[in-house]
Amino acid sequence: MSTSPERATIVVSLPDAAKIAWWIDQLAPLLPGWTLRPADDPGDPEAVSYAVVWRPADGTFTPFPHLKAIVSLGAGIDHVLADRELPPGVPIIRTVGADLTQRMREYVALHVLRHHRQMPLIAANQRQQRWAQQVVPPATRRRVGVMGLGNLGASAAATLVGLGFETLGWARTPRPLEGVEVHAGPAGLASFLARCEILVCLLPLTPATENILDAALFARLPRGASLINAGRGPHLVEEDLLAALASGQLRHATLDVFRQEPLPQAHPFWHHPDITVTPHVASLIDPESGSRIVAANIQHFETHGEVADLADAARGY
Amino acid sequence: MSTSPERATIVVSLPDAAKIAWWIDQLAPLLPGWTLRPADDPGDPEAVSYAVVWRPADGTFTPFPHLKAIVSLGAGIDHVLADRELPPGVPIIRTVGADLTQRMREYVALHVLRHHRQMPLIAANQRQQRWAQQVVPPATRRRVGVMGLGNLGASAAATLVGLGFETLGWARTPRPLEGVEVHAGPAGLASFLARCEILVCLLPLTPATENILDAALFARLPRGASLINAGRGPHLVEEDLLAALASGQLRHATLDVFRQEPLPQAHPFWHHPDITVTPHVASLIDPESGSRIVAANIQHFETHGEVADLADAARGY
Repeated sequence: MSTSPERATIVVSLPDAAKIAWWIDQLAPLLPGWTLRPADDPGDPEAVSYAVVWRPADGTFTPFPHLKAIVSLGAGIDHVLADRELPPGVPIIRTVGADLTQRMREYVALHVLRHHRQMPLIAANQRQQRWAQQVVPPATRRRVGVMGLGNLGASAAATLVGLGFETLGWARTPRPLEGVEVHAGPAGLASFLARCEILVCLLPLTPATENILDAALFARLPRGASLINAGRGPHLVEEDLLAALASGQLRHATLDVFRQEPLPQAHPFWHHPDITVTPHVASLIDPESGSRIVAANIQHFETHGEVADLADAARGY
Repeated sequence: MSTSPERATIVVSLPDAAKIAWWIDQLAPLLPGWTLRPADDPGDPEAVSYAVVWRPADGTFTPFPHLKAIVSLGAGIDHVLADRELPPGVPIIRTVGADLTQRMREYVALHVLRHHRQMPLIAANQRQQRWAQQVVPPATRRRVGVMGLGNLGASAAATLVGLGFETLGWARTPRPLEGVEVHAGPAGLASFLARCEILVCLLPLTPATENILDAALFARLPRGASLINAGRGPHLVEEDLLAALASGQLRHATLDVFRQEPLPQAHPFWHHPDITVTPHVASLIDPESGSRIVAANIQHFETHGEVADLADAARGY
């Protein structure tokens, strides 16, 4: 590793100041020779080589003329691209790894099973002391579709196959996945949706996927389907979801991501009987394990000038 | 198949009369040459060769002198052995099959994931519009133990391994299972329990396992462990569970089976904030698919005088 001593600062930026300190504490011992500082208290801005960020504010990177790379604390980079002053041409490193993939496949398995086995109904029955046995089909006769077959989506789909579900996938381009019926591109969307009793969104957020979960899409699902959004908040047209639940076109939705996070106190999703809200924890990066991925990526980039998890800013993910 | 025309009646007995009719409707076309009747309206009792039952009342079998076998509509036979007038020596056929095993592994996966990912806490937070991200370890650092490694337990354990959990098992006798740390017999119980953050009971109900889920067992679990009982109601000492939840020794329990079913309206489990009640649906036998297993077992027994799923009444399962 060739750390030039005069440019040995890594800055960290997250909306939550307590988490900045936690990340710095975890990263520092893994990156000997580097100085870790909050992005809004960087010391000499000329010394900053890397910025490790989640949802950086506009202009976060502007003070740093010698930035070698930006590290996104997540698999998506939409939150970085949203910075209107993002310096052009600076590589963006995504944070992916076994830990994140594992957490996402747990989340998808849990919430797909929860819809499949009618847990929202069973919980409502419990509140009313109602003993009501409902026969549901086994997973082998339940069709689940995953939109987005990147690292996280492909792993989630494989997990659903392992649980016995009839599993479908939809991606921008065709990509074979064992045991998964893959549909691709805009032309393949309608045939995919027509078969999904439970739909899981794990798409990256790009101009092409923003607002994709809208009334037109819901109308193509079988009546009474369920939705799980663990992609990004702007994938979902919120009013269209409320209308689809009201009409019975959708039965239930589980949402981990929102247009505004934390979800505002007054938001109708909190108290909707057919919406489960989870606070963006599907694949939460734990600084204790995430810091190892981030440190390894920075060290690899520093040595080789590249890294496997480089994002494509033009493509958006 | 050698159906003797004079002894071609199969009777069906379940506590719920509507379900008797449903089972008869499903079984009749699969068993040509046989007459299907409710056990309390059997026609000529001398003609009855098989009784297909779930929780038969005492004396259900007494009128039938030529019973060749009893078919339990479930993997367990405790509900048949409970009949104090059970005719001695009549073989008992269990109903097991891919469908039941599939349903049980779904249930175990769902509820283990639900505890692992703290869904009861997340649901409570939603009711209070509270956005609170909790970091939980990935499943690879979560220890789950399955008590009972028969058809259902072994399949559930394999499913947990597939989801990434650190999986332990406990059985009466040692039995190797890939990826599962198996402990056996009374001597192996304490070392097993000491490691189970989530404990799943899938034991058969026998005199040796009745009341096994008691204060002494809970005390051997790590503090704050969770319990899932999908075995039988009498495995659990209900007062001991309430005390363990009150003390914090246990964090949450999910119960599918109860000493009295349906669970009585006044039972404290219904409204307990740390107990999830499901109405004995973990591995509910759907007559539409279960009837195929039952019919095949009867036809096989009729032809061969034996069947793979014969229970051992002396052992109790």
